[in-house]
Amino acid sequence: MAEHLVIVGGVAAGMTSAVWARRESSSLRITVIERGSEVSYSECGFPYVLSQKVDSLERLIRYSPEKIKLERDIEVMTGTTAKAINFANQSLLISSATKESSIYFDYLILATGAKPQIPLFYTAAMKGIFTLRHFSDARAIEGYLRSSQPKKAVVVGGSFLGLEIAESLTLRGIKVTIIEKTGNLLKKLNKNLQATVEKELLSKGVTINLTEEVLAFDGKETVSRVLTSNREIDTDLVFLATGVEPEVGIAKAAGIRLGRSGAIAVKPTQQTSVANIYAAGDCCDVHHLVSDQPVYLPLGTTANKQGRVAGINVAGGRAELRGVAGTSLLKVFDLEVAVTGLSLQEAKEAGFAARSSYSSSISKAGYYPGAVEIETEIIYDTHTGRLLGAQMVGKEGVAKRVDIFATALYARLRLDDILQLDLGYAPPFAPVWDPVAYAARKAETEE
Amino acid sequence: MAEHLVIVGGVAAGMTSAVWARRESSSLRITVIERGSEVSYSECGFPYVLSQKVDSLERLIRYSPEKIKLERDIEVMTGTTAKAINFANQSLLISSATKESSIYFDYLILATGAKPQIPLFYTAAMKGIFTLRHFSDARAIEGYLRSSQPKKAVVVGGSFLGLEIAESLTLRGIKVTIIEKTGNLLKKLNKNLQATVEKELLSKGVTINLTEEVLAFDGKETVSRVLTSNREIDTDLVFLATGVEPEVGIAKAAGIRLGRSGAIAVKPTQQTSVANIYAAGDCCDVHHLVSDQPVYLPLGTTANKQGRVAGINVAGGRAELRGVAGTSLLKVFDLEVAVTGLSLQEAKEAGFAARSSYSSSISKAGYYPGAVEIETEIIYDTHTGRLLGAQMVGKEGVAKRVDIFATALYARLRLDDILQLDLGYAPPFAPVWDPVAYAARKAETEE
Repeated sequence: MAEHLVIVGGVAAGMTSAVWARRESSSLRITVIERGSEVSYSECGFPYVLSQKVDSLERLIRYSPEKIKLERDIEVMTGTTAKAINFANQSLLISSATKESSIYFDYLILATGAKPQIPLFYTAAMKGIFTLRHFSDARAIEGYLRSSQPKKAVVVGGSFLGLEIAESLTLRGIKVTIIEKTGNLLKKLNKNLQATVEKELLSKGVTINLTEEVLAFDGKETVSRVLTSNREIDTDLVFLATGVEPEVGIAKAAGIRLGRSGAIAVKPTQQTSVANIYAAGDCCDVHHLVSDQPVYLPLGTTANKQGRVAGINVAGGRAELRGVAGTSLLKVFDLEVAVTGLSLQEAKEAGFAARSSYSSSISKAGYYPGAVEIETEIIYDTHTGRLLGAQMVGKEGVAKRVDIFATALYARLRLDDILQLDLGYAPPFAPVWDPVAYAARKAETEE
Repeated sequence: MAEHLVIVGGVAAGMTSAVWARRESSSLRITVIERGSEVSYSECGFPYVLSQKVDSLERLIRYSPEKIKLERDIEVMTGTTAKAINFANQSLLISSATKESSIYFDYLILATGAKPQIPLFYTAAMKGIFTLRHFSDARAIEGYLRSSQPKKAVVVGGSFLGLEIAESLTLRGIKVTIIEKTGNLLKKLNKNLQATVEKELLSKGVTINLTEEVLAFDGKETVSRVLTSNREIDTDLVFLATGVEPEVGIAKAAGIRLGRSGAIAVKPTQQTSVANIYAAGDCCDVHHLVSDQPVYLPLGTTANKQGRVAGINVAGGRAELRGVAGTSLLKVFDLEVAVTGLSLQEAKEAGFAARSSYSSSISKAGYYPGAVEIETEIIYDTHTGRLLGAQMVGKEGVAKRVDIFATALYARLRLDDILQLDLGYAPPFAPVWDPVAYAARKAETEE
């Protein structure tokens, strides 16, 4: 009889692992267990549906359960929750609305994702307060926007997601206030670049307070006020973008080893501490290429890479994920924000003799119409000259330029290597000294 | 008395070397000899003045002789030609309109550039026939466009420059015909990508014949017909984009060693075969990072890099250019074209077990508005998996994406490394599998 691969979670990492396992083996029996009613959708696309750039949530779905059964012979059980792993008989206890049952597995891939961190004071559910992880969350927000036509919103948390939602709601005609207590907008970002992001948000009518703590939500059935350390804010909608934590319930209960971060610890093959159980995506750690440490860095790209590796390995192939640099991109209205590698603080914490260098350059030849400023911060080791991280902000030419740095991080290049890179030049696309090389040159000069 | 650095040529490599020599040494006496009347201008900007995207040729000039004297204490002699190098007394014979004289040098940097290759049959000068290297060439074309208002033009040569000028003239309302005899539009490009470039040109009204040889130009004072292997073409303007060759007259006469290409042979320090004579830019060879051979690859970026290295070294510092990948970018109307490293043919000629893989991907998440096709061709070694070259074509997201490949070439990455890269993702900027990683994945699958 065919071996049975059971995958818990049918979104990024889970569905990717299913598809790659099938590519590797046509005989494996594959079953995906998904708590929600949709699988195989792009979470990262939610903000663009909410902003109405993308016309429906359904556009974000790649495979329906029926389609993936038909095209890839992958069984999907939606509306089904994995409750417990039983090692003794290699079975998974699952429950749906109607019944509870056990399914046998030869291999298990845990792709249980992450869950939003909710402020401790927020216990009783109130209408108009949202988080955003699952398809059902997105559907709830979209439904509320249509039915309640909110005029004012408070976004709690100056995170990547917080800023994306601030943009989406603003584009829907809602007056948005961002509340953040740490003093930082996008906390990995250097202060100079944070200031540019803040300026962009302000210019689009977003109100920002970065040193204000949310203490309570007030309202009858629906939220109507946010109480903060400073004041009371009237609002029609609250969005919580205060970070996520790995969803490790069944893994922890089963005694699978967790990392220091609290996420599932994995080998480069995505194997967990249990031989036939793998993990992938936002529920597990990933090796950081720069710090050479396991870290918790929940990102869509990582989930896809880990899913691929897990899927190939359980199906009899061989693959490894050597690590990630944490490369992240963000569009904030007309601004592109990109980070890769370690921030200055992270680099110091990781034990590097780290220093950072700020430079300002331009996106095209200076005489070419439409050239705009690109601000770059690079973080490097003063002992070895090794690049440790890079951050860029600008109205064009940033998002994919940071990949040059990401590639340099993978190859462990030094500043002097970056200066040697043969980066492309033509007046419509770059100055002769590309902002990337310029940043390295500036940092070398400061040494 | 201060040592004297004399630089022959005041454009990209020459002026860059002067500026870097000055940064390195405040005491060095620096003199730049320039045949033309302008120095320190961007040749690569000429097409954009001709298309009227940039409003005047003067916008392309960074330093006037007066400004660079004032700000950097660099002496510039325009309208002055270097005639011969005299080793015995370390002097350079120079001539201007009014006199001939000798100047003593401690160090000499040759930055004499390149000259257009002219068809052998074209001997007598005729009005309306142009090449484009120097500021005076650009001024002559611009003058002719204004005074003669040409309606039809023939561009000879489907090169990077030929296509840029075809665009510029089309945007000036001129009906352009491109004639190329080799069957190739941008000969380094893979055929699939050439087809996309051809389609773009045709859609903008450019006529193209790729298997037609130009035999003669006809006309009275001004060109009026082009005679080809197929036919006679009425025209008001002819632009020759048939390649360039290094300008090595005085170097060759002085017995300085030339490479197999005919360009000046240089060490990684830009030193020539004569200890105190350096060369930089389009007059000299450059080491290719992939083939590990000296090659003739006249590009603005290389000229700048070589100029910097030569300037630092003659002024007492230490710098090397480890090599280039030949990264080149081109805008053809709405299309971005980018190449780096070796073409399949070049890779085979260099002795690699080379193979190429074509893939088609998209510039953003599929559901995000405005996602366009990106076509990628990667060239790799089948024995080692090492990346040897890459080419991309698409209406956005190509020009700087190719730099990821350029960085990979520098670091000698393999296909499996490229698949590991942590490239940035967000729906407005890339699909989850960036076209770069997708291309590597596809090539690996074909193996």
